[in-house]
Amino acid sequence: MVRLNDLRAGEVTVEAPPPVDAGLVFIGRVHTPWTDPVECPRQGRKDGPICRIEVFEPWVAALDGITEFEYLEVLYWLHLSRRDIVKQSPRNSSVVRGAFSLRTPVRPNPIGTQIVKLVRVEGANIFVRGLDCLDGTPLIDLKPDRCAFTPIVPHQPGDN
Amino acid sequence: MVRLNDLRAGEVTVEAPPPVDAGLVFIGRVHTPWTDPVECPRQGRKDGPICRIEVFEPWVAALDGITEFEYLEVLYWLHLSRRDIVKQSPRNSSVVRGAFSLRTPVRPNPIGTQIVKLVRVEGANIFVRGLDCLDGTPLIDLKPDRCAFTPIVPHQPGDN
Repeated sequence: MVRLNDLRAGEVTVEAPPPVDAGLVFIGRVHTPWTDPVECPRQGRKDGPICRIEVFEPWVAALDGITEFEYLEVLYWLHLSRRDIVKQSPRNSSVVRGAFSLRTPVRPNPIGTQIVKLVRVEGANIFVRGLDCLDGTPLIDLKPDRCAFTPIVPHQPGDN
Repeated sequence: MVRLNDLRAGEVTVEAPPPVDAGLVFIGRVHTPWTDPVECPRQGRKDGPICRIEVFEPWVAALDGITEFEYLEVLYWLHLSRRDIVKQSPRNSSVVRGAFSLRTPVRPNPIGTQIVKLVRVEGANIFVRGLDCLDGTPLIDLKPDRCAFTPIVPHQPGDN
């Protein structure tokens, strides 16, 4: 069952330190068909609907070259999530497990990652398949999928 | 050549908005053999050295269940990186390309992601192979690798 920020039997919260060690800038916004957490898929599918990733200025120039890649890694901010539940009950039962052994949105730093298939780019908008987040989710990064990417930089000692 | 925060010919910077849209808490620290950027591998290798990921309190309880997974996804904060170079010159030549089409540490939100092989867990310390970051890099998240993870939560409408 989707968590609407309630706490379930057996779950363990902590008094989390204030999240001030580093700051993020939202570089865009993700547009998906899902506006209700209950309707949102838990994991993206390669044959899922085409979704639009909108990149804000001044970051649009950083998209140059992105169409070379079939798959992209997308990082987004799970803006509706609690951050303090260290032991969670995925089935809403008495069985709990640690947040780091789950891909739950509820985590100390609620960052989601997904590998998506690039469909096309139109200006500041990237159309992809494979997302699984709510409409309006803030974007924090885009990278080529690591499997497809070979470093362009020249060799350096640490590479061996 | 490794960038030591210099700017190269043809590169384009922007006046980046202040990174205040969301805040991160460092949940641990990564210990690797590499203290000099020139010695650091550009991409982790499955047969790389065993590195230690130290998790800070109050987050250690969130590790419960993590030994079930052979591969983990690690998110870390590339604390030495500039964030303002939207077009970059990987080869230090006149050829530039967008930051989002590179896996460079220099990006608006300098978050690195890596898939690592779990070797063992000892209390608050996780020993893994496959990292490629500098010693002392702040940790921001740990998740089961998406390829190995099947959601535990019951079915919901959006999954279809």
